[in-house]
Amino acid sequence: MKKNVLIIGAGGVAQVAAHKCAQHNDILGRIALASRTLSKCEAIATSVKEKGSMKVEGDIQCYALDALDIEATIALIRETQSQIVINLGSAFVNMSVLSACIATGAAYLDTAIHEDPAKICETPPWYGNYEWKRQAACAEAKTTAILGVGFDPGVVNAYAKLAADEYFDQIDSIDIIDINAGQHGRYFATNFDPEINFREFTGRVWSWQNRQWVQNQMFEHKRTDDLPVVGTQTSYMTGHDEIHSLSKNLDVPNIRFWMGFGEHYINVFTVLKNLGLLSEQPVVTAEGQEVVPLKVVKAVLPDPGSLAPDYTGKTCIGDLVKGSKDGQAREVFIYNVADHKDAYNEVGSQGISYTAGVPPVAAALLVAQGIWDVEKMVNVEELPPQPFLHLLNQMGLPTCIRDEQGERPLDFSAQAAHF
Amino acid sequence: MKKNVLIIGAGGVAQVAAHKCAQHNDILGRIALASRTLSKCEAIATSVKEKGSMKVEGDIQCYALDALDIEATIALIRETQSQIVINLGSAFVNMSVLSACIATGAAYLDTAIHEDPAKICETPPWYGNYEWKRQAACAEAKTTAILGVGFDPGVVNAYAKLAADEYFDQIDSIDIIDINAGQHGRYFATNFDPEINFREFTGRVWSWQNRQWVQNQMFEHKRTDDLPVVGTQTSYMTGHDEIHSLSKNLDVPNIRFWMGFGEHYINVFTVLKNLGLLSEQPVVTAEGQEVVPLKVVKAVLPDPGSLAPDYTGKTCIGDLVKGSKDGQAREVFIYNVADHKDAYNEVGSQGISYTAGVPPVAAALLVAQGIWDVEKMVNVEELPPQPFLHLLNQMGLPTCIRDEQGERPLDFSAQAAHF
Repeated sequence: MKKNVLIIGAGGVAQVAAHKCAQHNDILGRIALASRTLSKCEAIATSVKEKGSMKVEGDIQCYALDALDIEATIALIRETQSQIVINLGSAFVNMSVLSACIATGAAYLDTAIHEDPAKICETPPWYGNYEWKRQAACAEAKTTAILGVGFDPGVVNAYAKLAADEYFDQIDSIDIIDINAGQHGRYFATNFDPEINFREFTGRVWSWQNRQWVQNQMFEHKRTDDLPVVGTQTSYMTGHDEIHSLSKNLDVPNIRFWMGFGEHYINVFTVLKNLGLLSEQPVVTAEGQEVVPLKVVKAVLPDPGSLAPDYTGKTCIGDLVKGSKDGQAREVFIYNVADHKDAYNEVGSQGISYTAGVPPVAAALLVAQGIWDVEKMVNVEELPPQPFLHLLNQMGLPTCIRDEQGERPLDFSAQAAHF
Repeated sequence: MKKNVLIIGAGGVAQVAAHKCAQHNDILGRIALASRTLSKCEAIATSVKEKGSMKVEGDIQCYALDALDIEATIALIRETQSQIVINLGSAFVNMSVLSACIATGAAYLDTAIHEDPAKICETPPWYGNYEWKRQAACAEAKTTAILGVGFDPGVVNAYAKLAADEYFDQIDSIDIIDINAGQHGRYFATNFDPEINFREFTGRVWSWQNRQWVQNQMFEHKRTDDLPVVGTQTSYMTGHDEIHSLSKNLDVPNIRFWMGFGEHYINVFTVLKNLGLLSEQPVVTAEGQEVVPLKVVKAVLPDPGSLAPDYTGKTCIGDLVKGSKDGQAREVFIYNVADHKDAYNEVGSQGISYTAGVPPVAAALLVAQGIWDVEKMVNVEELPPQPFLHLLNQMGLPTCIRDEQGERPLDFSAQAAHF
């Protein structure tokens, strides 16, 4: 049983998490919010107050923090008596925040893999380069560390585990499909930090095929699916975090990730990439100034948080699983559909932030209640999926399934009661 | 009679000018080359030596110079005893170099209009914002200042004056058409300084129509012409320097400039412009670094000089003039065709640099010989065109004409002999 949550980061996902923590502060206790820029934390705290999100009396304490500073992070965890840290800061701070959690015994949750600012798309499995090197340290310190517990990675890992447990005897392939069928009305924008967004696509595309790592180029392979609610959608094979743990933890020979892109996105991306403007390596201007092009692209693009008020339409993210059950070939799509406008009305953020920000709070609730407080480092598919998906059903991210019997919501209340 | 030339700038155009000055150093005397980066000057001097371009014994003296520093520029003009300054530096240094020429009595030649780094596309006529404010000062000091004496502006102004003098009683319209039908084999590159290139197209498009300034958007109007050598080509109405002097100095109600762009160029330009990456106004990165996006775009694009070895194909630039002569409506196209590979073989630069770099040296020869040494500030159409075009015929940029009698070279040797 743990309580008091420290959220690190103050972007769109942190805003969702803050609202969701507030809605469950009877279980989670005090909420603290820390990022480099104090004013961004304060804006979130104000939003939570304005929406009346607090379930029981309480407020959000805001702090300025450089999360690369391990000692400062340790001090803040202690000062706020936080036993759960939800790391929603940039992908570059995971290892330092994790160190602070190991030092203090606080549970560690994040939603994306650690990255070295100077490196793009390292050797698979990605978790092996950073996070998994701390498995022994977590086990020794009895530190609960749940890696990648956003939507994808995160919920889709739970879908994969659910499929393996409940719907298949043997799985041949898991294709994770992520479609944003929303419109933000801008010329171009990314749905989360442009720097992290583009870094996902500028390197090689790693997939797990025939139990081996396979390399492709971005936009080399595409598929078109007729999906629930969002209809016919084209997606492209993309490298993504969850492949790097599912390939180790599940006995599945083919695991691929597919992200939907419109032609306009691909055109803008292709121009920027070919010009070298998505590079994480510094260039020198004629005036002698050293600049990382990708950081300038980030600076000129809309703040993803600013898209929320005008965002309409829906997302559909799920696992298309093929294999066999009781000797019969079958195909199951386990998925969620989220609505941008609903997300904005509830927590002031768009749907992409919503799908990423709700799951780590569900995970925090399971840690707080001892259900997922495993005192070691795990990826989501190593944990029982039912209580997590049950909570998400209640928290705004319901799970649906499409199989031989058609499309329908999945109810986990019975299974969740086991835990 | 003036001699000894100081070339300011060390880009592709300066390289051409250095070679061409060397080829005529019997008349021009000593040659000095100055830019911010000494090593770029030295590379040009080496190239001139390797090609054996010097007509009589001599070499190129190289200097590091910040051409915004008027006192340093005055000192260098005096030290090198230069009586002619060819300013091929960035568009931001015109006024300071002109000041140094007025102070020393050296003749001033440039190829592009002065720009304030912080302003894009000012109010027409552009020359009125900066250069023409110094007309009285030039007249008083008897300083010869020939503005915009590259190809366009420059040679096309001489074509316009020639048309008015020789081919028409009355001109209804001059459409200057600039087509580069060459291929450089890169994903994307500009043919001269990307910063200056993009600045031409990010603002309003000013044209002179019905004796008034008219504003349009870039890529709003296009035309397709069947042109000599380069064939059918689409070009877009673009703002350009020469309109801003021709509209004042010639009695022509319609003067427009059209530049050829491929669909790929337009796509890249449109993406960069819409994202804000062509802005001359600084942005601040998440890390707090202040950066001008356009300068970063410049930093990632190929150095235009580096394109030369692989450049193939031809340029066609000319004036399509419509009006009447002896009561008959007529249409005349006066033009030049240049070849990228020929330019590279002769002076180590591509054709765009060649067309811009040869004319100011022709002008310098006319100043040196007293033919264009007018001791005041002028635009090219205020000077007799024949000796200039005659010299260009000999120096590698022959003038051709297409009219009722078909396409043919124009010979100016008879008229030029008058001067």
